[in-house]
Amino acid sequence: MTDDHEDGDHHVHREAFHHDPIAHAEARSGMTVGELADEYGSAGVGAATLHEAVDVYAEMLGDDDVTNFFGLAGAMVPTGMRRIVADLIRDGHVDALVTTGANLTHDAIEAIGGKHHHGEETAEGKTMREHDEQLRDEEVDRIYNVYLPQEHFALFENHLRERVFPTLAEEGAVSIQRLTEELGRANAEVNESEDVAEGQGVAAAAYENDVPIYCPAVQDSVLGLQAWMYSQTSEFTLDALADMTTITDQAFEAEKAGAMVVGGGVPKNYVLQTMLVSPDAYDYAVQLTMDPPQTGGLSGATLDEARSWGKLEKAARNASVYADATITLPLVVAAARERVE
Amino acid sequence: MTDDHEDGDHHVHREAFHHDPIAHAEARSGMTVGELADEYGSAGVGAATLHEAVDVYAEMLGDDDVTNFFGLAGAMVPTGMRRIVADLIRDGHVDALVTTGANLTHDAIEAIGGKHHHGEETAEGKTMREHDEQLRDEEVDRIYNVYLPQEHFALFENHLRERVFPTLAEEGAVSIQRLTEELGRANAEVNESEDVAEGQGVAAAAYENDVPIYCPAVQDSVLGLQAWMYSQTSEFTLDALADMTTITDQAFEAEKAGAMVVGGGVPKNYVLQTMLVSPDAYDYAVQLTMDPPQTGGLSGATLDEARSWGKLEKAARNASVYADATITLPLVVAAARERVE
Amino acid sequence: MTDDHEDGDHHVHREAFHHDPIAHAEARSGMTVGELADEYGSAGVGAATLHEAVDVYAEMLGDDDVTNFFGLAGAMVPTGMRRIVADLIRDGHVDALVTTGANLTHDAIEAIGGKHHHGEETAEGKTMREHDEQLRDEEVDRIYNVYLPQEHFALFENHLRERVFPTLAEEGAVSIQRLTEELGRANAEVNESEDVAEGQGVAAAAYENDVPIYCPAVQDSVLGLQAWMYSQTSEFTLDALADMTTITDQAFEAEKAGAMVVGGGVPKNYVLQTMLVSPDAYDYAVQLTMDPPQTGGLSGATLDEARSWGKLEKAARNASVYADATITLPLVVAAARERVE
Amino acid sequence: MTDDHEDGDHHVHREAFHHDPIAHAEARSGMTVGELADEYGSAGVGAATLHEAVDVYAEMLGDDDVTNFFGLAGAMVPTGMRRIVADLIRDGHVDALVTTGANLTHDAIEAIGGKHHHGEETAEGKTMREHDEQLRDEEVDRIYNVYLPQEHFALFENHLRERVFPTLAEEGAVSIQRLTEELGRANAEVNESEDVAEGQGVAAAAYENDVPIYCPAVQDSVLGLQAWMYSQTSEFTLDALADMTTITDQAFEAEKAGAMVVGGGVPKNYVLQTMLVSPDAYDYAVQLTMDPPQTGGLSGATLDEARSWGKLEKAARNASVYADATITLPLVVAAARERVE
Repeated sequence: MTDDHEDGDHHVHREAFHHDPIAHAEARSGMTVGELADEYGSAGVGAATLHEAVDVYAEMLGDDDVTNFFGLAGAMVPTGMRRIVADLIRDGHVDALVTTGANLTHDAIEAIGGKHHHGEETAEGKTMREHDEQLRDEEVDRIYNVYLPQEHFALFENHLRERVFPTLAEEGAVSIQRLTEELGRANAEVNESEDVAEGQGVAAAAYENDVPIYCPAVQDSVLGLQAWMYSQTSEFTLDALADMTTITDQAFEAEKAGAMVVGGGVPKNYVLQTMLVSPDAYDYAVQLTMDPPQTGGLSGATLDEARSWGKLEKAARNASVYADATITLPLVVAAARERVE
Repeated sequence: MTDDHEDGDHHVHREAFHHDPIAHAEARSGMTVGELADEYGSAGVGAATLHEAVDVYAEMLGDDDVTNFFGLAGAMVPTGMRRIVADLIRDGHVDALVTTGANLTHDAIEAIGGKHHHGEETAEGKTMREHDEQLRDEEVDRIYNVYLPQEHFALFENHLRERVFPTLAEEGAVSIQRLTEELGRANAEVNESEDVAEGQGVAAAAYENDVPIYCPAVQDSVLGLQAWMYSQTSEFTLDALADMTTITDQAFEAEKAGAMVVGGGVPKNYVLQTMLVSPDAYDYAVQLTMDPPQTGGLSGATLDEARSWGKLEKAARNASVYADATITLPLVVAAARERVE
Repeated sequence: MTDDHEDGDHHVHREAFHHDPIAHAEARSGMTVGELADEYGSAGVGAATLHEAVDVYAEMLGDDDVTNFFGLAGAMVPTGMRRIVADLIRDGHVDALVTTGANLTHDAIEAIGGKHHHGEETAEGKTMREHDEQLRDEEVDRIYNVYLPQEHFALFENHLRERVFPTLAEEGAVSIQRLTEELGRANAEVNESEDVAEGQGVAAAAYENDVPIYCPAVQDSVLGLQAWMYSQTSEFTLDALADMTTITDQAFEAEKAGAMVVGGGVPKNYVLQTMLVSPDAYDYAVQLTMDPPQTGGLSGATLDEARSWGKLEKAARNASVYADATITLPLVVAAARERVE
Repeated sequence: MTDDHEDGDHHVHREAFHHDPIAHAEARSGMTVGELADEYGSAGVGAATLHEAVDVYAEMLGDDDVTNFFGLAGAMVPTGMRRIVADLIRDGHVDALVTTGANLTHDAIEAIGGKHHHGEETAEGKTMREHDEQLRDEEVDRIYNVYLPQEHFALFENHLRERVFPTLAEEGAVSIQRLTEELGRANAEVNESEDVAEGQGVAAAAYENDVPIYCPAVQDSVLGLQAWMYSQTSEFTLDALADMTTITDQAFEAEKAGAMVVGGGVPKNYVLQTMLVSPDAYDYAVQLTMDPPQTGGLSGATLDEARSWGKLEKAARNASVYADATITLPLVVAAARERVE
């Protein structure tokens, strides 16, 4: 609806402007997350974008014809987003997962009984630098405000050497997806937690639900370092290119394709680039990131830019929410699930 | 609880590290916003901080001994956060409001029947620049993705000249707080909306609940420009310093003091600096901002920095959430209300 | 120059695309800052924008018909940008300065012999919070990584009470610009530094060169707090609106107008809004900021947005550099001066 | 130097505070970039950090005992930073380069005569979205404000299939480093530019100077897609783990180690993680990024965090500059070179 404004002898014809009043959000005690997402729709700026992201993601999840690609960057598993992704996989909302070796490492550490811990950037009596020096002495690794004692890496090494690598070493050069599948199987096997959902995590859920996990930069992680060390004394090798056929086939066969991208980096780019060798492109895309677009880097780049490359359909629905993804991922998922379920 | 780790012949004593496992957040269909905030507490990074912000704000709102100062920066009213603030005032959760002339301008425009509209940064067939050129021709002002037709400024001018300025002109040099009070009275008077909460807005709610509004940079707004133009042809003048006594008295008389700061700029600094001339300081402080601390500017500065100045008590509880405030303000308010009510 | 691309039987007509090859920047030992700025012009992203900012600013400084408005936000003087601004004033490159009370406070503290000091966010044996608690005990204020011992505020109080306020108290209600002028006079008077440029600073340079300083939110600073305390026991009062006539006249009388805006906040908005009551608008505008545009706040807003309001001419040249202004301000000024001088 | 402050009967002993006055930067016409870097040292915030980064990088470049690792993220080559990196390699200032498939793709495209072009986020008569739709029709890819016509990817494909892949296919499973080496050889061979420095680029310079290029996520790029397609119809395969021995050996054998990290992502993490399997760690580290640390992601993480992992020596010198790297990289390199040469 365009608008003509007349004010005495003065008349303005308006085309760029459209009537769609902002209604002012409410924040009520006891409201559901879905209701909050509706309130965001009343408002502007990031709130409006978040509302759109919920809308697009609900449409992706509610349409059985959509093949869902999920990109999960760096620190999301150690910082507490593991179960949300595992639950989405378990409920059939992920068809292909692209993630980092770091996320798979930290996911496995939890699966074999390890824990990440709430920590701080600094601690009593220490500067940030001194604190990190002390953590070094105490053999504790820090990821922003999360701690991980280093002995878990030794247990992770045992897990890999006992339950994951030996089988693979007999298979000749294996694909990275085959490695993540075997890791998921081993994680599922070892888990004895009564709360299965809490215990198994992302790779196990993917294994049990036949969801492939792609991890193009697996070398760039403790998982990759362990794989390399094992390869030094065994026949085990990883074929860097082998599983590109699988993900490309998924893109080819998708009636419609949707991308949920959390953070930037390789997971984002790999999810998107798959469409470069496919006749079609994404019909839906949501990204949750705090990387700024102004630097020109791929991580913060708008999804419109991806259109010029043919990664998104021209008519695709898409939304980019620029805010902390540890806040927006639970919010978008809970609200989209409320709408779909 | 510290930790001693023994691994064969190897022993590490840990002090910097403490056991406090990350439990991994859940995102369930139908969960309330308060339940979501609890889930954030399981996670790290921004999620953990947001959880802490809810906790601190709930403690501020639940304790009758706390005098609540609220800083509200720039674009929050036109982008849809007006009712959340008005509701907080109406429910007794704000004792002093520090805001900008822009917020008061846009609040009054809505009170007299004007509307802001959902818009876009660009529009069909236009670059951002061309789009803004066209909006200029169509007499529509843009605030990020919000539009405001300029005729509302003319109606706002009438509102001020008929209902606000004449009384004040008879009072000699008046304080800025007196101007905002009279504006609130006029907004309340003119409002004929059936939905009072929706219609009246921030200044009217403040007027009706005897909550003073401070606006140190009132000149820096359309409200300020109108005040200046009226002063050219009348006795009306504004005393820049007069109401500093009132806010300082509020700080002096507070048994405990809490600061909720949304965005940076003058509202943030003015809320905090009030403690420079008071024997005490803030016992609680929450800030919701996306301005980065790395630039050294006050807007993004940590609340720890404010401790060195004596603006926060050494023992104060505080939390800074670095994410889009149009997303976090409704979330924190709904969750804190759920906990208190 | 558009482009037609023919590749066998395949022909694409190109309009959106234009030939303008990126040439790849060089970084040579001994190159001047102006030469570096030229190299940025070869590149994309922020480098290209910085090159454009230098170009626009050089055009502003080189054209005698341009009235130069300069907006200087918060922490720029205490963090070491004082002399650059003072030198620009002294060389006739600033016609109106809009700044904060904080910058004027810290400028005067240096003028009367005080010093800011290099510091740290944390210090040996302390967390950030403990460090700030200790600084509180040691009566040292912290501005990011800059320290200021609090006794300088007492000396600043004496300076104001002896050399600035008494004269003004006899003049009745004075404008804020009159206060900043008298402050500049007093700073110039007291300075005994041999290196005049280093010693006098921004306000003194403005006083001696008849450049008005506007400071709409003066209350929001230690200068403002001192003014208020003095007003409690004297006839001294500040008229909030009085000097809006002066700056508006400057905008009216400008043949061409240019805006250099460093940081956001009130200085940015006040520089821009002046054009709302002027028949014309800015012909040139450069902003150097790290505030993100995505939040919808005015501080990070694009200059295109300002076009919709009529603050910039439709045909204005403008550039927004999103990077740390303590890095970009010296760079842009040195390069623009190299081009002009 | 600590400080004792006496003021009448009031005495404060200061330990956290140290005397180190801020001297206020100058921006002079004709000054060199090295002189500008010195001026930054007078100031605070990002300017101080940039000065420190120059200092650390100059020490890294000036000390022959330092093995220099260089991490180069995403969009740096297409946005014009190609020659700066190639020149550093040519002058012996890089011993190991870790980069992305994207940078290698765009580097090769230039080596075989292709050009990237200055572009815009939007174009006349188009929204950002429409502009990207049109670019799609015109077969032009956009990287922020840089354009690349897609026919260059076809020429790149020919280059790989004629000059790079065939040799490698005869070698069995090859390492990624071997692929980048062969690519560098081919780029050097084909180049007929008279200006060798301009023409050859990063991979060719690395080839000619025996500098290994590591590219852990090579699949995540057009180079990787081409490698995969070639592998479908040939014996060519890539071993994902093979070259981890080489980079680890470089870390082992380094007397001292330094890291220059431009942007985040895999290049940053891979440069740093190499020290996890080495007895020593980095003695120097500089990072130039605009990714915020607040998100908890590795890209924006402080270098102190890397200390807890043992990636940096406890006593290492390090500096993180949070600003646009297309601005800071040329600046830091030119200034460090000025100091060393």
